[in-house]
Parts: sequence; C-alpha cells; structure tokens
Amino acid sequence: MNEHEKFMKMALGRASTAAKQGETPVGCVIVKDGRVVSGGRNRRENGKNALCHAEISAINAACKKLGGWRLCECDLYVTLEPCPMCAGAIINARIKNVYFGASDKKAGSFGSVVNLAELPYNHKPNVEGGILEKECAFVLSEFFKELRANKKKSKAVEESI
Amino acid sequence: MNEHEKFMKMALGRASTAAKQGETPVGCVIVKDGRVVSGGRNRRENGKNALCHAEISAINAACKKLGGWRLCECDLYVTLEPCPMCAGAIINARIKNVYFGASDKKAGSFGSVVNLAELPYNHKPNVEGGILEKECAFVLSEFFKELRANKKKSKAVEESI
Repeated sequence: MNEHEKFMKMALGRASTAAKQGETPVGCVIVKDGRVVSGGRNRRENGKNALCHAEISAINAACKKLGGWRLCECDLYVTLEPCPMCAGAIINARIKNVYFGASDKKAGSFGSVVNLAELPYNHKPNVEGGILEKECAFVLSEFFKELRANKKKSKAVEESI
Repeated sequence: MNEHEKFMKMALGRASTAAKQGETPVGCVIVKDGRVVSGGRNRRENGKNALCHAEISAINAACKKLGGWRLCECDLYVTLEPCPMCAGAIINARIKNVYFGASDKKAGSFGSVVNLAELPYNHKPNVEGGILEKECAFVLSEFFKELRANKKKSKAVEESI
C-alpha cells in the first residue's frame, strides 16, 4: 500500500462511521508533512446542516488546529469527488493537493459536472482522482443498496398491517 | 426603496461592520416569509478560517434556527457575488432566490468566472445581481482605498525611521 492509499484508507474509515450513523458514507482526512492534521465525515442528516460535508468539517478543524485560513502545505484525501461547495472551500483554503476516490457524476466539481480547478480562480489545487476508487465506490453502493432494502421492508410491513 | 433594496441595506450594514473590523466588507442576510432568519459577515482574517464567509455564516445560522439542512423557502441577499464555496453551499442548502449586489470578476460563481446556477446540479437557485450595486461596490472600493493609504503611510513611517 502506498502513501496515498494509506491516507485514503483513513478517509474510508470515517466514511464507514458515517454509514453506521445513517449518513451517506463520505470521509476525509487532511495531511501535512506526512501527518494527519484533521478529518471529517458526512453528517448532514444528523447535523441538520447543509454545510456538514466531510471536507468542510476537516477544513474547519485544520484551520483551527493550524491557526490560520491558509492550508497551503496541506493535502486533502476524500472518498468521493468534492461537490462545488467543498471544491470551492478547498480553493479558498489554498489546499495544495487533492486526492479523491470515486467520481460523482451528479455533483462532482473537480472533473464530473465541472472542473473548478481549471477555472481562473486565485488558486488551483492539483487534483487526482481514482485513489482506491473501487473501495470508495463500494461503501457508497452498499449503503444505498441497504437503504433501498430497508425501504422495501418498511413498505412490506406497512402493507401487511 | 423596494423589498430587495431593504434587505440588501441590511446586508450592507453587516458589510460595514466587517470593514470596521479590518475584514473585506461583505455582508449577507437570509430571509423567509419576509422576515430575516439569519445574517453573516466576512470574518476570514479574525476568525482565521477559510470558511468564514458571510454566506456560510448565514447558512449555518439559518440551518440551526430552522432545524434542518433544506432552506427551500429562503432567499439570500449578499453584497458581493458568491465565490464557488458559497455558491455551492447555496445550491446544497436548496436556497430559492439569491440576490447579490456587486459582481466579483475574480471569484464570482454566479455569472462572472462561471455560473454554477446553470450547471446540472440537483438544485438551481434563481439568481439576480445588481441590487444596490453601486453602494455594494462602494464599500469595497473604499475599504481597499483605505487599506492602500494605510500601507503607504506605514511604508513612509518605516522609511523615516
């Protein structure tokens, strides 16, 4: 396992925690000088807040820990391609390198719907997708499969009452 | 003064507070059923956090106040065209209408650098720019004029020592 896979595994651990809490499983870690500075997981439903994405939590914690808004020397690992909010936060925080796992055809903003890293903002992070792609996509597909099965079960119970 | 101008004036009040605290003056209010639900101002420097934009603070407060991540019935007024992070947060929070004052050629993501409201995300807010545009641009240009004057003064003092 290389360095990128090691950190993506850590992000995957946070995604699994999210799934256990009924949240779409997305996890993230921020790394500086080979050490994890902060992490986050999606908790939009339980947090009842549109901002509670994995990357936003991790960036918030990293700014607090490092005492400034510029995360120039930091790399971010996230299991799913960032949405426009998170891609924008990554640009605003001047994060150097972004590594994501699975692509997100519906909201991904580092290549899928649009590539914000290629537009003329005042910072352009280096972005690489496909790190442990299969594993990152698997936790998501398993989560949605289970969600559909549970909905089917609930419906069957409802109809039998 | 129409309804839009009334709410933009409130956002301008928050922008002025930001300026007094040495922050780039951007202010925002979120409105539901004709009432202000929350507000925010830019405080990136003092907050030492890349997420501390006016819109993010206002969306965060509105989610907390309304008890959910969907702000479908809310309108957002902001003095400056949202950056990609804030435009993305507006899309994620399902905000209905966005009214901004001045355009932002460098980072504006509702028409200037890109128009995220026109891309195929799962929500498309209605966006209207140019509300009290002159006033909104004026607070910004005054702030930067003063900043430059102060830098010149400091330099002159430095050279005279």
